[in-house]
Amino acid sequence: MGSPVHRVSLGLTWSRQVHPDIDSERHTQSFDVEQLTNILDRGAQNTALRRKVEHIIHSDPEFSCKDNYFMTQNERYEAAMRKTFHMHMTAQSLGWSEEELGYAYRALSGDMVLGIHRVFVKALRSLGSDEQIAKWEPLCKTCQIITTYAQTELGHGTYLRGLETEATYDATTQEFVIHSPTITATKWWPGDLGRSATHALVLAQLICSGAQQGMHAFIVPIRSLRDHTPLPGITVGDIGPKMNFDEMDNGFLRLDHVRVPRENMLSRFAQILPDGTYIRLGTAQNNYLSMVVMRVEILLGAILPLLQKACVIATRYSVIRRQSRLRPSDPEAKVLDYQTQQQKLFPQLAMSYAFHFLAVGILEFFQRSYSAILDRDFSLLPELHSLSTGAKAMMSDFCIQGAEMCLRACGGHGYSKLSGLPSLVTKALASCTYEGENTVLYLQVARFLVKSYLQAQVSPGSTSQRSLPPSVAYLTTSDLSRCPAQRAADFLCSELYTTAWAHVATRLIKDSVHHLQTLTQSGVDQHEAWNQTTVIHLQAAKAHCYYTSVKSFKEALQKLDNEPAIQQVLKRLCDLHALHGILNTSGDFLHDGFLSGAQVDMARMAYLDLLPLIRKDAILLTDAFDFSDQSLNSALGCYDGNVYERLFQWAQKSPTNTQGNPAYEKYIRPLLQSWRSKL
Amino acid sequence: MGSPVHRVSLGLTWSRQVHPDIDSERHTQSFDVEQLTNILDRGAQNTALRRKVEHIIHSDPEFSCKDNYFMTQNERYEAAMRKTFHMHMTAQSLGWSEEELGYAYRALSGDMVLGIHRVFVKALRSLGSDEQIAKWEPLCKTCQIITTYAQTELGHGTYLRGLETEATYDATTQEFVIHSPTITATKWWPGDLGRSATHALVLAQLICSGAQQGMHAFIVPIRSLRDHTPLPGITVGDIGPKMNFDEMDNGFLRLDHVRVPRENMLSRFAQILPDGTYIRLGTAQNNYLSMVVMRVEILLGAILPLLQKACVIATRYSVIRRQSRLRPSDPEAKVLDYQTQQQKLFPQLAMSYAFHFLAVGILEFFQRSYSAILDRDFSLLPELHSLSTGAKAMMSDFCIQGAEMCLRACGGHGYSKLSGLPSLVTKALASCTYEGENTVLYLQVARFLVKSYLQAQVSPGSTSQRSLPPSVAYLTTSDLSRCPAQRAADFLCSELYTTAWAHVATRLIKDSVHHLQTLTQSGVDQHEAWNQTTVIHLQAAKAHCYYTSVKSFKEALQKLDNEPAIQQVLKRLCDLHALHGILNTSGDFLHDGFLSGAQVDMARMAYLDLLPLIRKDAILLTDAFDFSDQSLNSALGCYDGNVYERLFQWAQKSPTNTQGNPAYEKYIRPLLQSWRSKL
Repeated sequence: MGSPVHRVSLGLTWSRQVHPDIDSERHTQSFDVEQLTNILDRGAQNTALRRKVEHIIHSDPEFSCKDNYFMTQNERYEAAMRKTFHMHMTAQSLGWSEEELGYAYRALSGDMVLGIHRVFVKALRSLGSDEQIAKWEPLCKTCQIITTYAQTELGHGTYLRGLETEATYDATTQEFVIHSPTITATKWWPGDLGRSATHALVLAQLICSGAQQGMHAFIVPIRSLRDHTPLPGITVGDIGPKMNFDEMDNGFLRLDHVRVPRENMLSRFAQILPDGTYIRLGTAQNNYLSMVVMRVEILLGAILPLLQKACVIATRYSVIRRQSRLRPSDPEAKVLDYQTQQQKLFPQLAMSYAFHFLAVGILEFFQRSYSAILDRDFSLLPELHSLSTGAKAMMSDFCIQGAEMCLRACGGHGYSKLSGLPSLVTKALASCTYEGENTVLYLQVARFLVKSYLQAQVSPGSTSQRSLPPSVAYLTTSDLSRCPAQRAADFLCSELYTTAWAHVATRLIKDSVHHLQTLTQSGVDQHEAWNQTTVIHLQAAKAHCYYTSVKSFKEALQKLDNEPAIQQVLKRLCDLHALHGILNTSGDFLHDGFLSGAQVDMARMAYLDLLPLIRKDAILLTDAFDFSDQSLNSALGCYDGNVYERLFQWAQKSPTNTQGNPAYEKYIRPLLQSWRSKL
Repeated sequence: MGSPVHRVSLGLTWSRQVHPDIDSERHTQSFDVEQLTNILDRGAQNTALRRKVEHIIHSDPEFSCKDNYFMTQNERYEAAMRKTFHMHMTAQSLGWSEEELGYAYRALSGDMVLGIHRVFVKALRSLGSDEQIAKWEPLCKTCQIITTYAQTELGHGTYLRGLETEATYDATTQEFVIHSPTITATKWWPGDLGRSATHALVLAQLICSGAQQGMHAFIVPIRSLRDHTPLPGITVGDIGPKMNFDEMDNGFLRLDHVRVPRENMLSRFAQILPDGTYIRLGTAQNNYLSMVVMRVEILLGAILPLLQKACVIATRYSVIRRQSRLRPSDPEAKVLDYQTQQQKLFPQLAMSYAFHFLAVGILEFFQRSYSAILDRDFSLLPELHSLSTGAKAMMSDFCIQGAEMCLRACGGHGYSKLSGLPSLVTKALASCTYEGENTVLYLQVARFLVKSYLQAQVSPGSTSQRSLPPSVAYLTTSDLSRCPAQRAADFLCSELYTTAWAHVATRLIKDSVHHLQTLTQSGVDQHEAWNQTTVIHLQAAKAHCYYTSVKSFKEALQKLDNEPAIQQVLKRLCDLHALHGILNTSGDFLHDGFLSGAQVDMARMAYLDLLPLIRKDAILLTDAFDFSDQSLNSALGCYDGNVYERLFQWAQKSPTNTQGNPAYEKYIRPLLQSWRSKL
């Protein structure tokens, strides 16, 4: 009969009260948690609105995600579609604004589909003409069609010029013929494509009047609105299991000479006249605009919450978990009291805040410059591109490392899906590739840095010297050759460490330009020279991005003069963030003697001394992110700290316990008895 | 009717021939791949035996793992048990040796259960008396019982003294009463426990005659041999979904005053007389011996193959994937021709070899010293403990990073489970916790280093100076204050970089001792002083471990004088491994002026110049690991390089394509039509 279905009844008393070990952490409040939450929400009214939406979502059992960890890919997809459907119904009946919808997505993160429907709308707004927006946006908003954004191909990713899908204009019928000429041209990865979308925005190489005009975007109906079957010429399906995103039907799409009308090419920046004449209205970069929009969007919307949630879970668990003794006579200590645990978690906590302020700054810059770009004023586009690209690469890189560090800091229990951490780590891991592979993005930043550096070298006053964009203005001002720090406390001066970062970034950029020029001057072809120096450029771009994050954190703190308690506690995180980076790349600071070995030791002392100070506020600093238990969906990270009871009870619901043992009769019993046959 | 079941018939011609882009990589052989495989197998006869076993496994459809990526946790468990059953039947009928069984496990890695059955046997051999071994080992070998090793508890991991499970001796019946007094005492995580094992080796605190005697191991029957139901007093089940290891039933176990006879306590190093008298035959450390055995075992058996396989997959894919152009006039380039891709992959490849030689060295040392330890000669135990502990921590740390880097180097496709990489990464991630959490292990090494350093400081010739164990002998010899390198090529001297690593490790150990002593001399309690310097000790232990890996690689190469071609190609990997570490922690080398900034630049130049040299041999170096396509189970990593066809065809088999759309009628259609109700 196999292992019987196992129902535990241990008479365990699970107090629903807050565990005393986490309760005590909240007794002494050195700052007002609610005020910090309001700052993170950018206003108390936003906090209120967010909580209103979250309350609606979390009090409706249709949106429950408690069985997520036990579901198959098909079940996750169905559940996510159910929630998406209910969310749209709720939004319609309550008349939610776009902002409220955004909060609903946050509350249900990782549990929704049709996210790419929103990407389509954003691409439409960026690349479509006013008439196209007027026609298609209402269809999307009311879900009369379900859309996706089909760019990446089986054989082609970041290098868009390599995309193989073709759109050939046929002037006789005023149609485009969209076609996948090879297997590698198969569209691959678009979310919501596999089983849901009715229309795709297909990125394809435009061919008109026999000439290649580069990549353009075409709206292509792919499934019948009557019965959802693929339309003629369309082959579509799901790409199968992934490391995460089970809920999403990432799909493939092959097009066999599919015809769409001339009006279906998005035409804000390029048009085709009926006779096939091609008219460019913008620059070649415009087609990348929708990608810039998405990169800005995902910083706060998709990437950062993963790290923040991981910090909440790991920090809360670390005041419940007790292990070993600090002194033989003591009881076992909370693991958060160990220096090594603090070193694992607090830099991640500091980055959670650093990246928040960085992303908010970029979002605000984007909001200031976007309408000008849509009006074809492209002067701010290079700066916006560099900032968003660098922030995306850096934030996703560090969020992967950080979330993984949080998982590891929870020992074995972090590895259980019930902790919520595996899901956060694997979601983060995807972000190093989607919306641009990080190495490629860093190298795009590097090209911007090389260009800016050369511009800064033009002698001042020369007519050819234009002023540098703000993000690289430091390239003209950084001239310190030695760090003036004389004791550990000097490294808690934000001016000092920001200057140190500016110095190192400048030196590495200079070094990368020097290597590039040396090679080209020695006769190496410029493209080969670039390839042979990319490792060096990468290092420079990373230092520049880190500098940017330190500087934006410092500047955000300057605006908090009215909140001295919060300013003080965040200042420690800013210090830690800057020093963590310095100590991790101390070779870059020692290389030219900017820092001496003794100064690195001072920086380390300052860093280590910060840890116990941050320790006192750690739980409150994670509480301030204000994630509900439902959105954390973690047996380790709940607000009340009842870790072990929850882990035990959640495990009982696993299909491995609720279903019989499928192997006993077939294999285990025969195995146990096989020796008899040998007697 | 939803999306119909989707069957692709594209008339794609999938040549089963080797893809020309990978075929060309194998045309010029600068060394004999087969010979290198023989070296890795430690003898041509081992290669032959391994292949014989693999052939049996892979030609039997019972062992196929091609549907693994589409299965639920229950299905994976059932399939793994099926394979385990068939493997035991095969082994019985063919009379396989333990060595052949080991190769079968390798061929089926990640697809078997009852691995912990083997851990039980190893623990039995380490901790059991000769009588106990004679009684229980045959029962295990013939699978009359299925066993597990139950140490970790819900609330207790690495700190074994904190385990709560109690074993109280009752002299009246000559039995132990085994009991879980609290919820946190629940055994949690043991493999094969959840649904399979009939007996557990339970680690518990021994109480006899009212005295606590510390942790001991007890054989406890937990399930009926008649019908597999839990025995009286036993509560047992599965801990639910994890990040990986779906095939394994990691379990929980609660014991309610369960009685086992006196003979069931393993008694090689401690005995209980009938009247309850406790006799210790070894040292307090003996109970840790089975953990040392396991740590040695997993280096080559569990951890390293994950990195090696990831390297094979990512490197092969990188000569098929083409992206962007090195020059505008060129065709798109193989991504392995980009410097940044080489920088991602080749250090992982170098580590795959470095760690192989490190692990083989430790294994050989273990084999030399194990029987002496069983005979209660413990003189080599501290060295063996330090070596195996440090190697486990370092190898699992770098294997996680390395496998993840390989996944990321494959862009989006790496993220598909069909690439095989997500499984390798998440398996690696578990290894930072099992068999000892890495930070705790590094700190155990650090304690050994502090002790050894202080011993080295005793003035030479003094009677209290004993000679240091070989792994730390460098602490007395390293006295160079400046690196003599004058040009990049000097950094290709293995003596030079090994000395550099010895210098840095010595300096960091000295620094950690200095900090510890300064604190204690200033009046800080020694335990608090230890905690406040653990971040510094960690850094020192890591440098020591890296030094060890460089040194063992160098020494392994010296033994290859008869194979100059292989020696040359491996020497480049050894150089790269050493320099990769130096550049990643260059601050440690610059700190005291041992290296100058100019020398770091030379090291970087030497490093970058190695990349194109290794590039030529990269495919062959991964071929040499000799993993079959079946054991890689990767759409990206097959020997023939037919990446895109395989990815496309494997995806078609996903249940998301073979099963109907579960959401169409219920949610998608109502959503698409919901706007009508608003008209």
